[in-house]
Amino acid sequence: MKIVVYGLGIIGASLCMALTRAGHTVYGKNRSRAPVAYALERRMIAGEAQTYAGADAVFLALPPDVTARELDEGKFDEGTVVCDICGVKACLETLVYAKPRVYRYVGLHPMAGKETSGIRSADARLFEGANLVITPCARTDAEALSCVRTLAREMGFGRIVECSAEEHDRKIALTSQLAHIVSNAYAKSEQAQACAGFTGGSFQDMTRIAGVDERMWTQLYRANRENLLGELDGLIARLGEYREALARDDGEVLSALLREGREAAAGFLQKK
Amino acid sequence: MKIVVYGLGIIGASLCMALTRAGHTVYGKNRSRAPVAYALERRMIAGEAQTYAGADAVFLALPPDVTARELDEGKFDEGTVVCDICGVKACLETLVYAKPRVYRYVGLHPMAGKETSGIRSADARLFEGANLVITPCARTDAEALSCVRTLAREMGFGRIVECSAEEHDRKIALTSQLAHIVSNAYAKSEQAQACAGFTGGSFQDMTRIAGVDERMWTQLYRANRENLLGELDGLIARLGEYREALARDDGEVLSALLREGREAAAGFLQKK
Repeated sequence: MKIVVYGLGIIGASLCMALTRAGHTVYGKNRSRAPVAYALERRMIAGEAQTYAGADAVFLALPPDVTARELDEGKFDEGTVVCDICGVKACLETLVYAKPRVYRYVGLHPMAGKETSGIRSADARLFEGANLVITPCARTDAEALSCVRTLAREMGFGRIVECSAEEHDRKIALTSQLAHIVSNAYAKSEQAQACAGFTGGSFQDMTRIAGVDERMWTQLYRANRENLLGELDGLIARLGEYREALARDDGEVLSALLREGREAAAGFLQKK
Repeated sequence: MKIVVYGLGIIGASLCMALTRAGHTVYGKNRSRAPVAYALERRMIAGEAQTYAGADAVFLALPPDVTARELDEGKFDEGTVVCDICGVKACLETLVYAKPRVYRYVGLHPMAGKETSGIRSADARLFEGANLVITPCARTDAEALSCVRTLAREMGFGRIVECSAEEHDRKIALTSQLAHIVSNAYAKSEQAQACAGFTGGSFQDMTRIAGVDERMWTQLYRANRENLLGELDGLIARLGEYREALARDDGEVLSALLREGREAAAGFLQKK
C-alpha cells in the first residue's frame, strides 16, 4: 500500500517505521523540514509527501486542533482511508460526519508512547504488544475498517479493542487523561525538588509522565471535559476520605479504605 | 559477621540473600515456620535463629508495631548492631533512646520493593542500585554506623543518603506514602474494572502499587500523620486547581498549570 503519514513526532515517525517494516511504501509529511530530513536519512520513509494524492491510506499523527483542520479541509482522494490517532475521538467523529466526505474515516488511539517526544524517540517496535482502540460507528466503511485492522496487526499491536468514540472518551479520561494530571500535580510538591536519594519505584511511577506538552494536553482535556471532570472529582473525593480518616487518626477507617483499593486493584491488575 | 534477620518477607529474605552472597553467616527468624523452611531449602540462610545471642548485627524486617516491640523488649547482646528497615523513622528513634539500651541502633530505609510481597518475591539483587536512607543521630555509635555503611555497600545499594529521622519522614511522606494512597484511590474509579484494552503505561504506573497491605500501611501512615496530611492536602488542593480551570473551560489557566508541572518535573526527573 501507499501510505502517507502527516506529523513526524514520536507516534507518526514510529508509524512510518512500523509500516515500512511491514512492506508498505510510506511517505512522510511535516510542517517543519528537519524531521522529514531525519526520517529520509534513516529510511523511515520512502520520500516526502507534498499532498495526499494517490495515497491508499493516510495517518494524521497531529495535535487535536491540526487533526480537526486536516479532517475538515484536507484534500484527500476519493476512497482514501484516513485515520487519526488523537486521544479524543467523539469530537472528531462528529466533525467528520457533519458533511459528506470523499475519504473513509477510521478513528484510532494507539495506547503507546514514551515520556519523551519527537522523532528522535521514534521506535519501529513502539506498538508491539500495545493496546489499540479503534472507534468505528454505523457510518464507518467496512472495507476501510478491515484495512485498518490488517495494518494494525502488521504493526504488531497486541490487544485491539473496537468501541464507540463515546466509550473510548469515557474510559480514556481515567486511563490516560487523569493519570497525566495527577502526575503533573504530584511533581509540584515543594519537596519534590530535594528528594534525590529518597525515592523508590513508586515516586518514579507517579511522576514519570509529569512532563506533558501543555499545548496538546490542554486541547485533549477541553475536548473531553465532562468525562475528565467526573474522574477528577471522583479522585479528589476519594483522596479526601483518606485525608479525613488520617486527620481523625482513625485507623479502622483508613485500613478499610486501603483494603477497598487493594481489592479493586486485584480485579484488574492482571489484565492490561 | 554473624547476622540475624527477623522477618522473612520480601525485604527480610532479600537481605538474607544479599548478605549471604556477600559472605556473611546469616540466620533467619520468623513467627511462622514455613518461610524459615523455604529460606533453608534455598540456602538463603545458614540456619534458624531462636534468639539474638551471639549476633554481630540484627536486621528487623518487620511491620512497625512488631519492630517497635522488638526494639523495646528484644534480648540483644551488649554491642549488637540493631537495624530496622521501617518506612517511618522518628517514632522508632524516640522509642529506642527513651531508655538506655545495650545494643547499638541504626535506622534504615531501603527504597526497594516490589508490588508483590512475601518470601517468594525475595531477590538477592533487590537492593542493587537502589537508594538507601540511613538515619543516624547524635547518639548513634560511630562504629555501628560504619559497619552498616559497609554492609549496605556489600549488598549493592546505589546512592546511600544519611539524614535525620525527621527529614526522612518528611520526604518519604511524598516519595512513598502519598504515592501509595494515590495509587490505591486511583484504582477505585468505577471505570477501572472495565478498562482492559484501554490502558497504556500511564494507567499501569498509577495503579501498580495500589495493592497495599492495609495493616502495615495504616501503621506507617498513622506514625507519620502530620507530614502525610501536609502532602495529601497539598495534592488535593493542586488537583482542585486543574478541576476549577477545566470546569470554567479556561484553557489558558489549564495550560499554565500543566506547564508548571512540566517545569517542576524537569528539575528532578533526571535524578533518582
